[in-house]
Amino acid sequence: MSTKQKRFILPEDEIPTQWYNIQADMPNKPLPPLNPATKQPMKAEDLYPVFSKACCDQEMDTEHAWIDIPEEVRDMYKYYRSTPLVRAYGLEKALGTPAHIYFKNESVSPVGSHKLNSALAQAYYCKQEGVTNITTETGAGQWGAALSYAAKVFGLEAAVYQVKISYNQKPYRRSIMQAYGAQVTPSPSMSTRAGKDVLTKDPNNQGSLGTAISEAIELAMSTPNCKYVLGSVLNHVALHQTVIGLEAEKQMAMAGEYPDIVIACFGGGSNFGGCAFPFMRHNILDGKKTRFIAAEPSSCPKLTRGVFQYDFGDLSGLTPLLPMYTLGHDFMPSNIHAGGLRYHGAGVIVSQLLKDGFMEAVDIPQSETFQAGLLFSKSEGIIPAPESCHAIAATIREAKKCIETGEEKIILFNLSGHGLIDMAAYDQYLSGSLHDYEVDDEEVKKFTKELEQIIK
Amino acid sequence: MSTKQKRFILPEDEIPTQWYNIQADMPNKPLPPLNPATKQPMKAEDLYPVFSKACCDQEMDTEHAWIDIPEEVRDMYKYYRSTPLVRAYGLEKALGTPAHIYFKNESVSPVGSHKLNSALAQAYYCKQEGVTNITTETGAGQWGAALSYAAKVFGLEAAVYQVKISYNQKPYRRSIMQAYGAQVTPSPSMSTRAGKDVLTKDPNNQGSLGTAISEAIELAMSTPNCKYVLGSVLNHVALHQTVIGLEAEKQMAMAGEYPDIVIACFGGGSNFGGCAFPFMRHNILDGKKTRFIAAEPSSCPKLTRGVFQYDFGDLSGLTPLLPMYTLGHDFMPSNIHAGGLRYHGAGVIVSQLLKDGFMEAVDIPQSETFQAGLLFSKSEGIIPAPESCHAIAATIREAKKCIETGEEKIILFNLSGHGLIDMAAYDQYLSGSLHDYEVDDEEVKKFTKELEQIIK
Repeated sequence: MSTKQKRFILPEDEIPTQWYNIQADMPNKPLPPLNPATKQPMKAEDLYPVFSKACCDQEMDTEHAWIDIPEEVRDMYKYYRSTPLVRAYGLEKALGTPAHIYFKNESVSPVGSHKLNSALAQAYYCKQEGVTNITTETGAGQWGAALSYAAKVFGLEAAVYQVKISYNQKPYRRSIMQAYGAQVTPSPSMSTRAGKDVLTKDPNNQGSLGTAISEAIELAMSTPNCKYVLGSVLNHVALHQTVIGLEAEKQMAMAGEYPDIVIACFGGGSNFGGCAFPFMRHNILDGKKTRFIAAEPSSCPKLTRGVFQYDFGDLSGLTPLLPMYTLGHDFMPSNIHAGGLRYHGAGVIVSQLLKDGFMEAVDIPQSETFQAGLLFSKSEGIIPAPESCHAIAATIREAKKCIETGEEKIILFNLSGHGLIDMAAYDQYLSGSLHDYEVDDEEVKKFTKELEQIIK
Repeated sequence: MSTKQKRFILPEDEIPTQWYNIQADMPNKPLPPLNPATKQPMKAEDLYPVFSKACCDQEMDTEHAWIDIPEEVRDMYKYYRSTPLVRAYGLEKALGTPAHIYFKNESVSPVGSHKLNSALAQAYYCKQEGVTNITTETGAGQWGAALSYAAKVFGLEAAVYQVKISYNQKPYRRSIMQAYGAQVTPSPSMSTRAGKDVLTKDPNNQGSLGTAISEAIELAMSTPNCKYVLGSVLNHVALHQTVIGLEAEKQMAMAGEYPDIVIACFGGGSNFGGCAFPFMRHNILDGKKTRFIAAEPSSCPKLTRGVFQYDFGDLSGLTPLLPMYTLGHDFMPSNIHAGGLRYHGAGVIVSQLLKDGFMEAVDIPQSETFQAGLLFSKSEGIIPAPESCHAIAATIREAKKCIETGEEKIILFNLSGHGLIDMAAYDQYLSGSLHDYEVDDEEVKKFTKELEQIIK
């Protein structure tokens, strides 16, 4: 072969047959979710009315490190997995860094992002349990698109509440969901109590994932034979996403390297956890010293500036109380384009791992993320999703440090999705009309101090 | 392995190292291009002022069946090639057909279509020859996006004339080209003589590939150190695209099958030829009986209803006269969404092959193509480009015949690109507001009868 290998793809029989459940290996297990009414710890059974049973069991499983991927789900994975691991020679050259940069390219899934990995699993389990209808929320629409297709695959009807700002900013994503046959409603809507409450207080409210979750859960609870599915935050979602990191581990071995740093963008944590946990396992069990960096927006910095506290997963307080890094469930994120990162809280597992020092977090201003995304577009040809631009920006920061130190660090980041539906955001950046949003300490205090009341 | 294999990917060292030049194996060689002024046959050298020399030589090469892919181009191919060959079990099931349907998924290239295969080659040759600026035309924008990225890869400046109807219908595609750093102008424009001529006659003219080509060539001819590059029609473009069919041949072998029918959509012929020629080689040389079907729009049916005649490749008559199936270079195609198929003529090689009975053509109404595209989206998860929907529709027609006859035919089609930038077209179809356009015989006669004058 005349030239260096760029791309590593696993043969079909090496696609993982099990997901990795990091809960089993964590030195400090996550604190239990609490019943919002009684404040008592909840068991898996308590969640059965909302989610599929299989997902509830996975959610609370702290015993089994490996969980079989159902054959029907693996069968669908084979249409697009393994996704490629790519050595970003173009980006390295553009930066002039001695670092070796790799990215896991989840953007080549049929729906354009990693979200399909969990959507297929959740839709499958619902189908198995006799469910006919599923509801969910979506921000930028990556999750909604994935879920809409997964529902179609397993013969379910899907209803999606899409955060209104994204519904309007990204009409193509709505069209994609509709092309897959889903029903899409902008949130907040007048179709639920939760939506009405928001709109009567603030008729121009542009929505948030927290509100959309409230609406979707409410619809699920009030509809026969209907379950709710979630695109991130919860443990079982991150579990399904570990197929990313498990593949990447084998692919890095094909490249003859092991990452010094693993980076992913951070909304609720499933993309980050999916990529990071399989490698973090070796930090926990085998004494590896890989650094794990979650990249979040400066305008929604729950990991870097939030508090570790029990909080609701949604705006209205319909979900269990979860022990998480949070900005407070009333926090309304700014209208950044990375809709998938506009969420007030972090998943339970990730929150515990951050508290215990197994990972780090950085928050990045919006303009820096688009600058990074454009450099990546020009040097690697793929236009990244605004969410993924956060991972790229964090990668560039680390790669630039290597220029100063001369270190040939091995950096792996997850390219969670492409940004082809987000070109309006790039247009804004290119025309100089993109805003940066920052959160100040007073704002964080305002929304988090009431949390102490909730768990009293 | 528990389940049937869906996806076939070649190891990096099996990616083709040569393109296949069908001209060398054709029983009847294509007629030569004619100088538009003198009507005398042209040689490769006569084309040097417009295109890179290497491409001119490839254009006229009827001797060498195999042409080396430059190492720098192969090096870039490795970022996304081999593209997957996928068995479309989902579509087969949705149709209830005994046919085995495979598709070559070119939509996973960084720019979303097969166009990058030739863009990289053409940009590379220009760079090699000391060119600094390149110009081109684009319809839907798939070619323009590919060329913009390829120019960036090899350090060239790109100026793209985009057909105005597409420029307006698909603003995201313009943004993509701009994200890659290209300059994009809607065509017809006031920046060229050719554009001004159209606009002074018809200020609301929505453009065509023929006009955009005239503008791009004019700019290239009047700019120092600038060459013109073309996304289809010409022989060297189809040559570069044969990497598709050469890979597919190996991948079909991995699947243990050989196609009875090969189908691709048809604009100028490079996508079709790229997929078909490597298989057609075995019809010519080895007595195979594969059928080859070019799928074109009913509104622009040069293969099924045009005439075989010398004609210009552009509106203004700047190009050589080419022996092609054509609707006449003055023919202005209807505003269908498949912008890449809105071209009056067919490539020279394909025209000769059609004349000699080596291939067939079908024309398909726009609404049938979107119906096919939506069925494919729901059953395979990938939303296809409007151009690719033509290939899917033709595939479905053949697969349905197999239901009647019970034959397990092996059908391969090329999924030339994804339709994520074309969701407005899907919206129109879903809302019932999509138009079908037909061409009547009188219209064809009107535009083709003057061709006889041209070559007198």
